[in-house]
Amino acid sequence: MPPAKRQAAAPLEPPSGWTVDAVLKNVKKLRTTMGDQAAGKQTLADVGVSGVTKEVIAMDRHLVTRAIERIAMDAALTIMRGEGFSYTMPVRTASNMLYVPELDRLVLKDKMLERVFANASAARKTAITTRVLQLVLELCGRGIHVTKRDLFYTDVKLFKQQTESDDVLDDAACMIGCTRSSLNVVASEKGIVVGRIIFEDDGDTIDCTKMGVGGKAIPPSIDRVTSIRGDAQFILLIEKDAAFMRLAEDRFYNTYPCVIMTGKGQPDVATRLFLNKVRATLNIPVLGLFDADPYGLKILSVYMKGSKNMSYDAINLTTPDIKWLGVRPSDLDKYQIPKQCRLEMTEHDIKEGKQLLTEEFIKSNPEWHKELELMVRSKVKAEIQALSSFGFQYLSKEYLPRKLKEGDWI
Amino acid sequence: MPPAKRQAAAPLEPPSGWTVDAVLKNVKKLRTTMGDQAAGKQTLADVGVSGVTKEVIAMDRHLVTRAIERIAMDAALTIMRGEGFSYTMPVRTASNMLYVPELDRLVLKDKMLERVFANASAARKTAITTRVLQLVLELCGRGIHVTKRDLFYTDVKLFKQQTESDDVLDDAACMIGCTRSSLNVVASEKGIVVGRIIFEDDGDTIDCTKMGVGGKAIPPSIDRVTSIRGDAQFILLIEKDAAFMRLAEDRFYNTYPCVIMTGKGQPDVATRLFLNKVRATLNIPVLGLFDADPYGLKILSVYMKGSKNMSYDAINLTTPDIKWLGVRPSDLDKYQIPKQCRLEMTEHDIKEGKQLLTEEFIKSNPEWHKELELMVRSKVKAEIQALSSFGFQYLSKEYLPRKLKEGDWI
Repeated sequence: MPPAKRQAAAPLEPPSGWTVDAVLKNVKKLRTTMGDQAAGKQTLADVGVSGVTKEVIAMDRHLVTRAIERIAMDAALTIMRGEGFSYTMPVRTASNMLYVPELDRLVLKDKMLERVFANASAARKTAITTRVLQLVLELCGRGIHVTKRDLFYTDVKLFKQQTESDDVLDDAACMIGCTRSSLNVVASEKGIVVGRIIFEDDGDTIDCTKMGVGGKAIPPSIDRVTSIRGDAQFILLIEKDAAFMRLAEDRFYNTYPCVIMTGKGQPDVATRLFLNKVRATLNIPVLGLFDADPYGLKILSVYMKGSKNMSYDAINLTTPDIKWLGVRPSDLDKYQIPKQCRLEMTEHDIKEGKQLLTEEFIKSNPEWHKELELMVRSKVKAEIQALSSFGFQYLSKEYLPRKLKEGDWI
Repeated sequence: MPPAKRQAAAPLEPPSGWTVDAVLKNVKKLRTTMGDQAAGKQTLADVGVSGVTKEVIAMDRHLVTRAIERIAMDAALTIMRGEGFSYTMPVRTASNMLYVPELDRLVLKDKMLERVFANASAARKTAITTRVLQLVLELCGRGIHVTKRDLFYTDVKLFKQQTESDDVLDDAACMIGCTRSSLNVVASEKGIVVGRIIFEDDGDTIDCTKMGVGGKAIPPSIDRVTSIRGDAQFILLIEKDAAFMRLAEDRFYNTYPCVIMTGKGQPDVATRLFLNKVRATLNIPVLGLFDADPYGLKILSVYMKGSKNMSYDAINLTTPDIKWLGVRPSDLDKYQIPKQCRLEMTEHDIKEGKQLLTEEFIKSNPEWHKELELMVRSKVKAEIQALSSFGFQYLSKEYLPRKLKEGDWI
């Protein structure tokens, strides 16, 4: 093997005649209009909604420990009063969910359920709840994190199926009033990040401008990510890792100060928590680069609105104000994407597209609605990679600078 | 949110009465017995096999450029001689493959095929080959890397299906005599690494002891990974990320100097290249921690033997001498894994297990064969997570130190 040398690509220059400042002018303007609408900043109290369960908050392990001890104490007291052994917790079914337009997210309403040990149908679930609370107490006491799978395996005899311990984990978070990640039970990690951001991960300083082309794996335990800082002007959120790799290798962030991240398709919880935290801490806009197809929009909506199943934790998991930078259906003509790089939508695609047209987050934004209508009408979709038909570096050298300069997001 | 504090777990201590040196004694001994059998060091010439195509080698972009220019020049000369336009390349089908026991890998034999433009059935394929060579020339000229998907999109009209450009990429590598990653076409990245290793990634120094709990994403372009160094005594190769996260959070590598990596299930090409390179550079043993089921063994075999499809690049993609540390079928009784953490094998599992018993890499190793026989006979499997039944940190505090101390690998 010949001695490996650094084979660096030429530094990225803005398109000829443009300066970096000119390209970034609209991004800076967008930032000033963001004001206090920052993601994760507005709470139910801010918009004056009442009669709903309080939203969960991130707690440190000492607060979680105290909350579990209080729950156990309450249970012990009712037993001693001769009232039997039971837990009280918020109902997490769709009937107890409320969409709050001001926050653009689902929250739990105030219906509670009692899980009574003496009730034959609830005895096992009550036992599982007790065991899960005990395990979480142990995790918090030792300050370690485990996966849901690990948790399941600590008592297979009782839990039987992983879905049972998973389900009760969400119950436990709602009972305590904390986020699921506060329970020290984490999701596996999938996302990666590079760019003008520095943070501490469990005491190690991570400088994401010095992570090579591979990027930094987004840490699974968000509570260990602290001291987020950096001079990034915006976050570029990418659907898939191919476009991420292109921008990372071109060191796009060196020329245009930004944070680049991807959840590699359907994002995991860790990536969504990280995006939310970076967005809220640096208070910079998030620009989304997704495939121009229904699937791309669906993934975008997961970042923005989250899943119903974890709606109780939406405040930490969702980033409602993402701007749709591209690739938008109208881009196909505007950027003259060659016919052969456009793909015909399948029946299933068209059905998905029509379904999306009825969803609140599309309907509430006329510009998004118009784009999606165009897609469904033209029956044509395209991937981010379609831009490669103009050359491998068209994305970083032409498309993105032009998009940014024109403030071409909706 | 309360101010985030570092919630470090207590530093990992060896089991009581043991020293770190005592735990590592067998690993050090293993290292001395490795000698020159290092993975990727032995070539066909070393073992005296002839009559086969030369194996491909890693080339820098200047060598690849020269090779492509030579291929184009040859084609031009045959055209000018009036012999028509054609390419000659090694046949990549199973009939042209040879298993070399000394190397424990598949290599291509010397059968060649001619792709003739004037031949109606090969005209399109010849055109595709020409286009792919031209695109690779462009990539090498600019020193940038793209994914297979990017490459496909540069000429959808010609390639039609991505499988067509992918397939010709492998042809191109074989024609040039270089690895596929030398073509600057990379796989997407999936693997992560932490531990006592430092390397350069595109000029950035990456210290994997300072990557927090999230670890470093394994870079997609192996040729940019240089200056691998560190005081690791062994590589701990983990099947899935749950166990990886446990060891990363416990900073297992601070107590026992090692590199910890995972491909998160079925490994991608980048992870396999990285493992091979770290293994060959540091010349330290690789110990595998996999689920005790046929699927775990199959993934282990991908690391060791690779896939038939890319057998021409086996020397860089495979790491033949991985030791099977655990979780082995015999561990279930030895470590008294509770009955309820053992899972019954399905019909499909048993069939897979029986199939594996007939494979060369199992048959050639009596100890592996014995373990697999035990699995198929007992019809019982177990995941790494089954160890959590003894406590969340049993893996890092008890199981692994004991395994290492006893030299309990096969």
